[in-house]
Amino acid sequence: MNKCSSVAQRPPMGWNSWDCFASRATEEDILKNAEVMERRLKQYGWEYVVCDIQWSAPPTAVNDPVYKPFIKLKMDSYSRLVPDEIRFPSSSCGKGFAPLAEAIHNKGLKFGIHIMRGIPRQAAHSGTGILGSSATASDIAEFGSISRWNGDMYGLDPDNAESQKYYDSLFELYAQWGVDFVKIDDICNTNMFPHNPYSASREIEMYSKAAQKCGRPMVLSLSPGPAVVEQAWHLTANAHMWRITDDFWDEWRLLRDMFDRCERWQTHVGAGSWPDCDMIPIGKIGAGFGSQRDTLFTKSEQVTLMTLWCVFRSPLILGCDLAATENDDWTMSLLTNEEALAANQEGWNPRLADKSESLVTWISTGGKYAAYFNISDERIEVEPIGNWNVWKKAGLGKAENIEPHGALFAMKKE
Amino acid sequence: MNKCSSVAQRPPMGWNSWDCFASRATEEDILKNAEVMERRLKQYGWEYVVCDIQWSAPPTAVNDPVYKPFIKLKMDSYSRLVPDEIRFPSSSCGKGFAPLAEAIHNKGLKFGIHIMRGIPRQAAHSGTGILGSSATASDIAEFGSISRWNGDMYGLDPDNAESQKYYDSLFELYAQWGVDFVKIDDICNTNMFPHNPYSASREIEMYSKAAQKCGRPMVLSLSPGPAVVEQAWHLTANAHMWRITDDFWDEWRLLRDMFDRCERWQTHVGAGSWPDCDMIPIGKIGAGFGSQRDTLFTKSEQVTLMTLWCVFRSPLILGCDLAATENDDWTMSLLTNEEALAANQEGWNPRLADKSESLVTWISTGGKYAAYFNISDERIEVEPIGNWNVWKKAGLGKAENIEPHGALFAMKKE
Amino acid sequence: MNKCSSVAQRPPMGWNSWDCFASRATEEDILKNAEVMERRLKQYGWEYVVCDIQWSAPPTAVNDPVYKPFIKLKMDSYSRLVPDEIRFPSSSCGKGFAPLAEAIHNKGLKFGIHIMRGIPRQAAHSGTGILGSSATASDIAEFGSISRWNGDMYGLDPDNAESQKYYDSLFELYAQWGVDFVKIDDICNTNMFPHNPYSASREIEMYSKAAQKCGRPMVLSLSPGPAVVEQAWHLTANAHMWRITDDFWDEWRLLRDMFDRCERWQTHVGAGSWPDCDMIPIGKIGAGFGSQRDTLFTKSEQVTLMTLWCVFRSPLILGCDLAATENDDWTMSLLTNEEALAANQEGWNPRLADKSESLVTWISTGGKYAAYFNISDERIEVEPIGNWNVWKKAGLGKAENIEPHGALFAMKKE
Amino acid sequence: MNKCSSVAQRPPMGWNSWDCFASRATEEDILKNAEVMERRLKQYGWEYVVCDIQWSAPPTAVNDPVYKPFIKLKMDSYSRLVPDEIRFPSSSCGKGFAPLAEAIHNKGLKFGIHIMRGIPRQAAHSGTGILGSSATASDIAEFGSISRWNGDMYGLDPDNAESQKYYDSLFELYAQWGVDFVKIDDICNTNMFPHNPYSASREIEMYSKAAQKCGRPMVLSLSPGPAVVEQAWHLTANAHMWRITDDFWDEWRLLRDMFDRCERWQTHVGAGSWPDCDMIPIGKIGAGFGSQRDTLFTKSEQVTLMTLWCVFRSPLILGCDLAATENDDWTMSLLTNEEALAANQEGWNPRLADKSESLVTWISTGGKYAAYFNISDERIEVEPIGNWNVWKKAGLGKAENIEPHGALFAMKKE
Repeated sequence: MNKCSSVAQRPPMGWNSWDCFASRATEEDILKNAEVMERRLKQYGWEYVVCDIQWSAPPTAVNDPVYKPFIKLKMDSYSRLVPDEIRFPSSSCGKGFAPLAEAIHNKGLKFGIHIMRGIPRQAAHSGTGILGSSATASDIAEFGSISRWNGDMYGLDPDNAESQKYYDSLFELYAQWGVDFVKIDDICNTNMFPHNPYSASREIEMYSKAAQKCGRPMVLSLSPGPAVVEQAWHLTANAHMWRITDDFWDEWRLLRDMFDRCERWQTHVGAGSWPDCDMIPIGKIGAGFGSQRDTLFTKSEQVTLMTLWCVFRSPLILGCDLAATENDDWTMSLLTNEEALAANQEGWNPRLADKSESLVTWISTGGKYAAYFNISDERIEVEPIGNWNVWKKAGLGKAENIEPHGALFAMKKE
Repeated sequence: MNKCSSVAQRPPMGWNSWDCFASRATEEDILKNAEVMERRLKQYGWEYVVCDIQWSAPPTAVNDPVYKPFIKLKMDSYSRLVPDEIRFPSSSCGKGFAPLAEAIHNKGLKFGIHIMRGIPRQAAHSGTGILGSSATASDIAEFGSISRWNGDMYGLDPDNAESQKYYDSLFELYAQWGVDFVKIDDICNTNMFPHNPYSASREIEMYSKAAQKCGRPMVLSLSPGPAVVEQAWHLTANAHMWRITDDFWDEWRLLRDMFDRCERWQTHVGAGSWPDCDMIPIGKIGAGFGSQRDTLFTKSEQVTLMTLWCVFRSPLILGCDLAATENDDWTMSLLTNEEALAANQEGWNPRLADKSESLVTWISTGGKYAAYFNISDERIEVEPIGNWNVWKKAGLGKAENIEPHGALFAMKKE
Repeated sequence: MNKCSSVAQRPPMGWNSWDCFASRATEEDILKNAEVMERRLKQYGWEYVVCDIQWSAPPTAVNDPVYKPFIKLKMDSYSRLVPDEIRFPSSSCGKGFAPLAEAIHNKGLKFGIHIMRGIPRQAAHSGTGILGSSATASDIAEFGSISRWNGDMYGLDPDNAESQKYYDSLFELYAQWGVDFVKIDDICNTNMFPHNPYSASREIEMYSKAAQKCGRPMVLSLSPGPAVVEQAWHLTANAHMWRITDDFWDEWRLLRDMFDRCERWQTHVGAGSWPDCDMIPIGKIGAGFGSQRDTLFTKSEQVTLMTLWCVFRSPLILGCDLAATENDDWTMSLLTNEEALAANQEGWNPRLADKSESLVTWISTGGKYAAYFNISDERIEVEPIGNWNVWKKAGLGKAENIEPHGALFAMKKE
Repeated sequence: MNKCSSVAQRPPMGWNSWDCFASRATEEDILKNAEVMERRLKQYGWEYVVCDIQWSAPPTAVNDPVYKPFIKLKMDSYSRLVPDEIRFPSSSCGKGFAPLAEAIHNKGLKFGIHIMRGIPRQAAHSGTGILGSSATASDIAEFGSISRWNGDMYGLDPDNAESQKYYDSLFELYAQWGVDFVKIDDICNTNMFPHNPYSASREIEMYSKAAQKCGRPMVLSLSPGPAVVEQAWHLTANAHMWRITDDFWDEWRLLRDMFDRCERWQTHVGAGSWPDCDMIPIGKIGAGFGSQRDTLFTKSEQVTLMTLWCVFRSPLILGCDLAATENDDWTMSLLTNEEALAANQEGWNPRLADKSESLVTWISTGGKYAAYFNISDERIEVEPIGNWNVWKKAGLGKAENIEPHGALFAMKKE
């Protein structure tokens, strides 16, 4: 067990910049969202504020939400990426993310960053150095260890002892900055080799060791999915959460699939071990991809999403622009339902109880919570156990209707 | 949860006829082995005596250890296979396995049988009836649901409600006979469809329900392997043990592989949920395959096998002819080591602790047991934790040698 | 080269009962269609009349177009299937298909039958005999060699010399009957093993040898597809035509796919070697599946189909009920266009010349024929080579419009 | 048909530097081998002298036969690789391979080079220009289109019209140099995507067009294998030869495999269309990999190799250091047998005639040549057709013995 055991004892709750800002998030975007979280959500347990991909790229590069290859990224002299100073002005003069982290800590929140597995390609091709090592980037980079979808990095050679030093140097830097959460990407499912989606397992171990050594407790979150169930034990030993799906967006097809994923992963949910259903694309999203839009999920589908994430105990990471969403009472009500969040944070032993063509039923906490999901296109009727309708905040009838794609979240309330 | 929860709270311990008698076991073989178990092994916890495949086939058919296709099996009027009366004389006059079960119960032991998934092909082609149903075998049999390796049966259509009635009728009969353990074959990994080795999942559920209904507690054991880790939750819900490997025999290659299998399955071991490393081919085996022979495993490999099965908490099912083996003190010492068996029966939380090219280390019971496996072809030295050498029944040195393919089973003894 | 070289020097042209009568064709159906072929199509080169699957099954079995498993098929004492006497009255008294073949020959046409690979399961389970052999069906049948989609037969063991005798006995019988064309099913792509769709290759060789020995020239047609291109040389050596697609029906998606299939197979088209695009589902079809209906292909798509089949030189096997279709002038015009049929029967060296998102172009016969296919959903314009519009029977403009999913069949006419 | 049709009307015959010099060949090595070819082999038809991989790398990089990643390659200002001037002194002052090509032409031989698909990574990361285009290397390079085994290049984006201009600029340069043969690597089977080994098909088309445009006839040879049989038509249209195997070396296992490969490709052999069994590793090889050694093939296996390559009509490309091999009479006799070479150069319609566990028989040229291969480990006897033993240059007996792994090459001599 390499990982830090003082964090993520409950499913992490927070916000991530991707669904709303794509690769273009700025310091201002991050701070605005942190401000809303502090004011509206912190009291319900939401705490992590995570800046997603490509914070080292100049504004010119991120004008296109698709990554621009071969662009020059901001890098320190030890081959480590640092924030672009135009997009993150507080990082100037070599301060990195320290000022932004401090600002977020001052709100009583926690700060997270996204990184890509490996070392910048530009470092390998120019042969820059590694902190605490006489090796250069070109010595430890593997020319064929690449992401399928982003050209910034090369993976590291796990047989070269200097590789660990590079990852150690990264986490030293992040600890100096005050980072609380690291989302490592292109690592959980690399899609590099046909029959080995978990090809980066030794790099996971290196990151995990680096995080241990750095001294600062940080949540380790692995992406993208789908993670490989056979490696559940290894993921549990080395990370706090890992994606069980490829990128999740607001399409019923993807939400429907999540039932199968949760089914497979249910036995691996527990303290410090959180199979992750991915960010929650409800509210106002998409600005960074062209223009802001409302989620495409119907209200019934949103209820289904939140119910499944809560009963299964997925991490809860919001994708919307909170500043644009906070006046949307419907969405806010989904994020502030204390009983739903309690099922997520304090429930235990979530299990698929039954499934048919139309109805999927999950139970947790010894029957305290029962979630009924109508996965069909027709209204159905169920006879729920329990006495309380979590979302309606009202008593339960003997029989209840569930709309197409909707859910009923029932509990036994004392 | 369909399965009976009063059995298999610890890994089942017993004997199975396959490794020594292939498809040819007779009543006399079974009784002789039960007699040795009663006299020599019962006191250590060994209890199940299981008759393996093709007990319905006439002696002419089983002269060849490879199954003879299209032979007429002994069947009752409800399409249920019953013992061949020549090989199992006590079964005459429709008594089935009841007399043999009783004889074994009288020794203080338990009785098990092997069955193949489905209904006899001969029943489908002749259209015989089903107890408690107006359907016939030809109505519920699926013409394409076949075993890859044995031509006796057709699987049942899970969409036909009459199929459950047939499986119910089987377990009613087995309960009448006094069966305590059912090994269901061609069900855990059917190899029928390229991408769906777990294609018989709904038949597993039917068997599980039938076992519940029959009223008699029985251990449900699923074969063959490898089971699919993604379905661990479903296996746990519906069976007590399941094979994590294809047929295991006395070859180092297969034993070496078992480390990877145990690694994958370690998080699924617990009361009523036993990933199964398969029968133990040590001692005298093989008579039914041509001629009796000694295991091909070296003594070091035998120690490795027993240590892994014990620390991982696999079911312990012996494969040897006990009557031929009981004078072999070496083998008997492996089966009667109380501390090794205690690790298997009472240990908890077995985990792979470390692995390298040469050394694999497992820990269980919070560090009480530590198993060191030398998977290389050279002698190695380890510095074990603990103070007691389980197999040598002696104190541990600070450093201990382990022979190639051998193991050191260390514990903290009070 | 085992196969008969005096037949199929040009792509076979004919009719098959499946698309219109499913598994229910009767003698009356066959004769009615033969009568229309004689009167309306023979003069254009159409000649084979083929009775498709399950002519041994009783009417009760074929009331359902899906095969009814475990039904008793009509079989002679040598384990050979013969026609059901109710559906094929002229076959009574052991005459088999001889009278029907004679009736069709009297019309100047040729007669074909469908068979399934292997020997009836009922023969294996009852142990009936083989002509000219002391073996029984149970000796040569392989219990695991089954069709995925029909439960009538077991494949034969190619390592057992008696297997050839059974296939020889079949073709002797078919020669006695006067059969000219045998469509062997479940043999070209068995889908039995994940990585070996061509698993029945040795049975193909046995059929081919049996056909050679029987003395009567017969076209050997192999189904279902998709055939495996790597085995093109083996198919060419042992058969006259083979399916390059799974069952083809009147859906644009399937027709669209055929372009890729023809692309892959283009180098294997030539005398006696005909990659087969499957039956042509235009006109009135479907009666045997429930109710007769018109093809779902638009007129543009029908032109595309006929153009592709003709330019590529696929066998031309009609699927419609000719008796119901013969008053449909549009359809009849597609079947009687002499220039299109000449491209099919006498063209040479068909080649994909170009393809884009919207336009696929094929050329054959050294540029005499040029076929332009609009695979997009928008009208397009092309500047064809040649001077004659085959389907319009008119001169070509410098530029021609092609409707969505439609085709232009251009030629150089002297 | 894009390719040049005035070359490769017969299987190309020549020499390639890889098997003897790995990535380290120098101008001196090339010239020495050309000299032996001129003096000893030219009269038998051998003509191409091909310099294999990494002629742009400095001597320091190629000291290790494994490619050193991230090394600086010699490149012109248009992102085109040119020879390293230390290893190829005549290339200095921007003359490239022109002087070496001229030297080889002066011997009456032809000159070939190896290239890797794509554009140098160093060009993409530094953004250098493209001849005749305003685009830069970073505009047309695809960051994820990489070789699995060499880190020098990125593939080009086929949807970007500027990509063609880069490949055009390469062939313009090669035409200026006087190149006669281009072996394009990492293109025939890219192994980049699980289910699409032929992912570079559009780059093949671009190279083919570039070669057409450049005006100088050049043989296009595609590597590595195995090529995809389904794409035979596309390979035939765009190249002159393509590898049907991964790298071939002197191991019986690989030679044994070649029979299956030739079987699959036999229908695609003909003028301008040469499935390629790869270089011939007999004689003295391996100097560039550490130390020079004799081939590991037995004499029988060498005969088998030469017989198969000749009867199947593979290109014949020698791998040995000719200067080190020329005094080896045995090897030279295999390279100068006029009848064997005639079968290769002038034979037609090579076909697998029969195969069993021990004997494979190929026939070509309407029965003029018959090749019998003993693929077993025991001596066998055959009764050959023909009257002449090609390798022994003697009459044939009625029955002839063939040594294990050996071959008999029989012909009908007038």
